[in-house]
Amino acid sequence: MPDLTPGLRAELARIAGPDALLTDPADCWPYGYDNSRRQALPQAVIFARDEAQIARLVRLCADTGLPLIARGRGTGTTGATVPDRGGIVLSFERMDRIRRFAPEDRLIIVEPGLTNARLQQAVGQAGFFWPPDPTSAAVCTIGGNLAYNSAGPRAVKYGTPRENTLGLRAVNGTGAIFQTGVLTTKGVVGYDLTRLLIGSEGTLAIITEATLKLTPLPEAKRTLRAAYTDVHTAARAVSALMAQPVLPCALEFMDSTAIALARSQSELDLPQDTGALLMIEVDGPASCIDEAQKAVVEAARLSGLLELRLAQTAAEVAALWQVRKALSPALRQIAPKKINEDVVVPVSQLGKFVDGLTQLGQESGIRIVNFGHAGNGNLHVNLLIDPDDPAQVERAAQCLEAVFALVLRLGGTLSGEHGVGLEKRAFVGKELDPIALDLMRAIKSQFDPQGILNPGKTLPLA
Amino acid sequence: MPDLTPGLRAELARIAGPDALLTDPADCWPYGYDNSRRQALPQAVIFARDEAQIARLVRLCADTGLPLIARGRGTGTTGATVPDRGGIVLSFERMDRIRRFAPEDRLIIVEPGLTNARLQQAVGQAGFFWPPDPTSAAVCTIGGNLAYNSAGPRAVKYGTPRENTLGLRAVNGTGAIFQTGVLTTKGVVGYDLTRLLIGSEGTLAIITEATLKLTPLPEAKRTLRAAYTDVHTAARAVSALMAQPVLPCALEFMDSTAIALARSQSELDLPQDTGALLMIEVDGPASCIDEAQKAVVEAARLSGLLELRLAQTAAEVAALWQVRKALSPALRQIAPKKINEDVVVPVSQLGKFVDGLTQLGQESGIRIVNFGHAGNGNLHVNLLIDPDDPAQVERAAQCLEAVFALVLRLGGTLSGEHGVGLEKRAFVGKELDPIALDLMRAIKSQFDPQGILNPGKTLPLA
Repeated sequence: MPDLTPGLRAELARIAGPDALLTDPADCWPYGYDNSRRQALPQAVIFARDEAQIARLVRLCADTGLPLIARGRGTGTTGATVPDRGGIVLSFERMDRIRRFAPEDRLIIVEPGLTNARLQQAVGQAGFFWPPDPTSAAVCTIGGNLAYNSAGPRAVKYGTPRENTLGLRAVNGTGAIFQTGVLTTKGVVGYDLTRLLIGSEGTLAIITEATLKLTPLPEAKRTLRAAYTDVHTAARAVSALMAQPVLPCALEFMDSTAIALARSQSELDLPQDTGALLMIEVDGPASCIDEAQKAVVEAARLSGLLELRLAQTAAEVAALWQVRKALSPALRQIAPKKINEDVVVPVSQLGKFVDGLTQLGQESGIRIVNFGHAGNGNLHVNLLIDPDDPAQVERAAQCLEAVFALVLRLGGTLSGEHGVGLEKRAFVGKELDPIALDLMRAIKSQFDPQGILNPGKTLPLA
Repeated sequence: MPDLTPGLRAELARIAGPDALLTDPADCWPYGYDNSRRQALPQAVIFARDEAQIARLVRLCADTGLPLIARGRGTGTTGATVPDRGGIVLSFERMDRIRRFAPEDRLIIVEPGLTNARLQQAVGQAGFFWPPDPTSAAVCTIGGNLAYNSAGPRAVKYGTPRENTLGLRAVNGTGAIFQTGVLTTKGVVGYDLTRLLIGSEGTLAIITEATLKLTPLPEAKRTLRAAYTDVHTAARAVSALMAQPVLPCALEFMDSTAIALARSQSELDLPQDTGALLMIEVDGPASCIDEAQKAVVEAARLSGLLELRLAQTAAEVAALWQVRKALSPALRQIAPKKINEDVVVPVSQLGKFVDGLTQLGQESGIRIVNFGHAGNGNLHVNLLIDPDDPAQVERAAQCLEAVFALVLRLGGTLSGEHGVGLEKRAFVGKELDPIALDLMRAIKSQFDPQGILNPGKTLPLA
């Protein structure tokens, strides 16, 4: 990477505008990490203000070879925003306005730095929501959600950002500003660049504006908890729930390791021999919610169901979610480090997958805890390790490779919603078709001929 | 285009395999048209059999410069499959198998030549459907649906092929076979080539297999017909219907010109002063359908509503649809030629758009009849003309340009579901951002460096 000469620094300051450039390492450090616990020092941080400023910055980077990394709030888990090759971090935290809200057309046009929570608040007042709801919704940004196609539990019914974005504005790696997509829910003029940019982790272009498709808020929601003897029964229930017309708006799963962990932390009001747990939510018009609940209860009721509880009050809902909520603090307490993998297998393979994980855990001596979005087959596989034990770290790395191999053998994919970044870069070549990967690389070099946009992320190194 | 020398013809025969090559012009003519009424003679027709055969054929075309045009059943309306530059038409009518049906994973893997109707029949028996339902569903193929991102009325609730396809296999313009996407409803590894190919009209790659996401069949459906005094009231009703949580599964529109036309053909049981008509369908669990109906009735009931009729029996449903069904034969009878445009405007602009069309009709003396998928803002604008009247043909061309300009002024798009092909190629440059268009052209030359895949279609000529 090129040095930040005084001349270059002065040019960055001119482009950044007043109070929008950081170059002191002490100021820059906080913009060099994400939730992967990786960290690297950016050479400078610039606060994005508008498209023209971003285009000028991209051109300077393309001329000088400085890497440029767009960043929301650093909640990503893959190191995708960590400037491991130095360069400029372009923080979107100040570029967070709502540009236009058109409830009559069910759309909103926003800047990428807007947080998911503020978006939901703004559109919620008019009776709408934007379906993607990552766990980090309180702080994560729309730009980040689009970069990783981040979804969350509601995706099982309402889809991911790819199904809920109408168009984008962006700046490519030569500093050219362009617009993709439409303002409408149908449109087939030209190639679909909107979805090409979504999930590309800032490697093809820097998104400067997004037109989001909104959905009317459901009137009512019901929460159920189903305890099963074992994971195979639970997996069959997932298939049954997904095959009937009342699609759950959340269908979350915990395996026996996750239940045991939650149980170790607090008294759980759950049958002793529970081997797998499903949390099921349905939403819809208030007048239909009883019937909707009946339909999912019927689908969930298989031989092997130990207990089915319904919540109706807010307190009852909280009580049912208690097992799941107890999990994250428990994970943090018992293991100094967890490797949290975000893999997906076809729903029919969930049982086989969890069996395989159990075996891998036994073989490697690594404790593996599994939970996640079962309706999409999207499991978060957590390997709990002590980072100060080099032998365990080594075994965990081998175990992780075996987990990925198992996922691919079962017809799955290595990331459902966290993306690739640096963490999975070495593995995705095993999933991607080699010709498709060549085509992706060609697209990358065409959108970003100098290779300055988030270099080395997302695609495996050549 | 290169001549079909005896050597080339022999090579084509070897690649085609037994009984799979046509070269006699009399045999080839039927494969040279589509529903745009354009027609051109292909130099040869080959019946697709499998991926390996297609890859060999693409390599031969790339070596010799012969254009290669994939074709389903020729129901497209834009000339996208018409071999206007000669070359080989690759017909998929024999490559129509279901490769794998996995109801427990809600997916089916099919060959592109399968018709939409046969797909629906196969998955319907297991309680599922594939949402895209073009009017031509009885004969059109899945490959064609993917090529144009063709949707139909159900898209308003269930989305287009882009939202209902998980992955593809395809052959690019160098004859390389590749796989895109996943078997699951979440996945963010690599760039989204699946959606890039969908809607690209066979110009980037030839699709050889599609993995389709299925949806459980709703148990019940209700049909309503709402007659309004004028288009503005109807447009407000569309916004209101789309803003409440019981999304209609069809929301079709007819303006006063369409009603007048239908009335001219048959006795219609409809209030005399009806200025705009909505057909509204809701579906869902049988136990909720009364309440769902109530919700849409409430949203549809605005001042300016003349009559709202509900159908409950099949006969009543047929009676309500009678006005809409009377339209197509009427159009065919009264005008020797109609220019059927498939444009989209934001729902809030529907009233303004129809007003503008009325004015354009008056100014040009062209009769314009409008109906379509109002929930998506997708109107089919029909210009009725006599092709033997050169002055009228000339005025219609000018009028059409003005229609497109109006669509773009209102924030719309020039095609919702029919695509671009040859018909709109000259116009889409007005919609597409010039930088985005450059990026699309670069993608095209990268997927198809020799420019042999459906040359001259979809993107404006350079």
